[in-house]
Amino acid sequence: MKARKNIFYAQSGGVTAVINSSACGVIETARASRARIGKVYAGHNGIIGALTENLIDTSFETNKSIAALRHTPAGAFGSCRYKLKSLEKHEAEYRRLIEVFRAHNIGYFFYNGGGDSADTCLKVSRLSKTMGYPIQAIHIPKTIDNDLPYTDNCPGFGSVAKYVAISTREASFDVASMAKTSTKIFILEVMGRHAGWIAAAGGMATINNDIPVIILFPEVKFDRNKFMHIVDKNIRRYGYCSIVVSEGVRSSDGRFLSDHGITDAFGHAQLGGVAPVIASMIKSDLNLKYHWAVADYLQRSARHIASKTDETQAYALGKAAVKLALEGKNSVMPAICRTSNRPYRWKISEVSLDKVANKEKLMPRGFISRDGFGITNRCREYLEPLIRGENYPPYRNGLPQYKFLTNTLVPKKLKHSFTIR
Amino acid sequence: MKARKNIFYAQSGGVTAVINSSACGVIETARASRARIGKVYAGHNGIIGALTENLIDTSFETNKSIAALRHTPAGAFGSCRYKLKSLEKHEAEYRRLIEVFRAHNIGYFFYNGGGDSADTCLKVSRLSKTMGYPIQAIHIPKTIDNDLPYTDNCPGFGSVAKYVAISTREASFDVASMAKTSTKIFILEVMGRHAGWIAAAGGMATINNDIPVIILFPEVKFDRNKFMHIVDKNIRRYGYCSIVVSEGVRSSDGRFLSDHGITDAFGHAQLGGVAPVIASMIKSDLNLKYHWAVADYLQRSARHIASKTDETQAYALGKAAVKLALEGKNSVMPAICRTSNRPYRWKISEVSLDKVANKEKLMPRGFISRDGFGITNRCREYLEPLIRGENYPPYRNGLPQYKFLTNTLVPKKLKHSFTIR
Repeated sequence: MKARKNIFYAQSGGVTAVINSSACGVIETARASRARIGKVYAGHNGIIGALTENLIDTSFETNKSIAALRHTPAGAFGSCRYKLKSLEKHEAEYRRLIEVFRAHNIGYFFYNGGGDSADTCLKVSRLSKTMGYPIQAIHIPKTIDNDLPYTDNCPGFGSVAKYVAISTREASFDVASMAKTSTKIFILEVMGRHAGWIAAAGGMATINNDIPVIILFPEVKFDRNKFMHIVDKNIRRYGYCSIVVSEGVRSSDGRFLSDHGITDAFGHAQLGGVAPVIASMIKSDLNLKYHWAVADYLQRSARHIASKTDETQAYALGKAAVKLALEGKNSVMPAICRTSNRPYRWKISEVSLDKVANKEKLMPRGFISRDGFGITNRCREYLEPLIRGENYPPYRNGLPQYKFLTNTLVPKKLKHSFTIR
Repeated sequence: MKARKNIFYAQSGGVTAVINSSACGVIETARASRARIGKVYAGHNGIIGALTENLIDTSFETNKSIAALRHTPAGAFGSCRYKLKSLEKHEAEYRRLIEVFRAHNIGYFFYNGGGDSADTCLKVSRLSKTMGYPIQAIHIPKTIDNDLPYTDNCPGFGSVAKYVAISTREASFDVASMAKTSTKIFILEVMGRHAGWIAAAGGMATINNDIPVIILFPEVKFDRNKFMHIVDKNIRRYGYCSIVVSEGVRSSDGRFLSDHGITDAFGHAQLGGVAPVIASMIKSDLNLKYHWAVADYLQRSARHIASKTDETQAYALGKAAVKLALEGKNSVMPAICRTSNRPYRWKISEVSLDKVANKEKLMPRGFISRDGFGITNRCREYLEPLIRGENYPPYRNGLPQYKFLTNTLVPKKLKHSFTIR
């Protein structure tokens, strides 16, 4: 009897608060399908783990440890920013991957990432066929940027959105308290270099306009005069104003605002950070006292305030990947399909990878208010179910019980090592 | 029969995640003592509300609304940064306060703030006696800086500490995942210009040194070489490193590091932010890829992850203030007295205001590790109970149900208005 094939699972690109839930969905479902699936190997630091034959044997982890992945943020096996180039230029890398898969009896390649990894998935599947060791490649979507096509939303996004909405609301309450004699402007810088999905979540911080929130989207060219006008209007009406700015906002000449030549006394240029740039503009034009925050990694690792919808979907997609594998599917991605808004209902659909790979889904223009500084009701309807529900991790002594796995490596089988570019 | 005296309550200075819990403790306890206490009036925007006779009549709020203060961050009645100067120079202000108190039959002045407001409390009490309208002045401690003397800790601090500890732990999990090919350094800037209590909480992010955290305290002069040495050591051992830096860190010449002459392309100087300064130094000296975050107001308004110990104590101190008032006490502050570490036990004690006013409690040297970059076990023992326990707000549609009060003003009685300096 032919041995059951193993799964190779890897995390790719920037991690999220719930990517480990997808890993958990994969591993728990595979464990429940022992009759047909062997082990789940995970790439140590993502796809680099496959190339260098550093495979983590997840079977050494207890069921309890695997279950703890559902409430542990970031990438439990390590991720990487490493894009496999075109097949023509770097065929050696793809061949190496398949060599490693063959050596370790891997029949399923699960790649958990964004657009780039969907593309890699597709290429691996194609080449494996021509190399006579066919691999079922399945892409599990993940990206806080929410920019994958053919899925209603992307796991990781809902939790960032919840974090941004709540943080903006909380800080706005703070500024409202202080505005009489002190800070009148609060600026929060959020991620999303190309698409404004995360910035849009700042719009959820206000309920029936009870607090003033201005959003600066990467999709809308920054117009300093228009912006100052609306800030001033809010100050007159509310006495204070919150601003959520995407790191990707550009000025009319197309440059990132954050690139506007910030240097420090040590002569180092480009510290990054668009929030301080906006702050200094406001100081200069309106002479208002400001505070600014840069959420950076906090927003995408904030498992303590993850969205329940998001975590549930991340797990479900991991589980669905195993089911698709067992059904013999190849070059596909399980996706979220919204079937109803009220009540919010969704199901898992199946998308062919050649559709998904290397495509970006920007914010629809109909989600951005006419003046370009806010979100529309359609956008609120879209976002609201994605941030819904709390899913708290367990705590001990005041801290969430996040889990580091043991990450035991599989003994290497190949004679040759492989050097990463 | 003489009318029952009213309470005047005001919030002072920077707000916190739990200052409204103290307000709730005051109002609920006063409502339960109707036989002896009249109404609770709150200053609209703090003490300025008293000076300008803008008093909020809290009796218009339902019991349910008042109860919601326990889970609402920031200052529900508005706070202000307005320090009453010396009695000699600005006696007119103190006299005006007492005039307002007299006009509105206020017998109790509850001032909810830090060291400055303790001092104001004391002065008001003294002058009121000489003016023949004696007021019982009671200070309710509040400051995220945790720098008040004669109280084991200050309400507001525990929740910031919990936020910083959890955020640092979460971001560290993120960096750990990415370090192989990408970010190796994460820097989180936190508040605390003079005392390193908040930065110290970053040390709670590591459990038995499972993640590397370096702390830069305002109490320790920044030594670039020593710092780079320890960063490098952590990178070699762990592959990544987190750094929690207090906004108040100073270089050897005594200047704030954040003042090191940052300017932007628009010619505006001093944007603030020490995190990017540290980041660029690391880039320059060690050439490591970094990310940085500035928590700013997010840290002190994060009611969603407030410490249960903190919230409980904030409420208890508000309640204690009313009890002290009913006992006829004057010029006092209810304080937290720790009676046991294991198990953690505390009680409310009573401190005379002349002891507290205008004094700062810095971190004890025994709480900072010998190398100056971490916390000692004694510090951990001190901090641990303060961040313990979760106390989640109720949610609706993915957002915490924070409450804006109606804040109905009391009709003015005085003929003259008062102009704020």
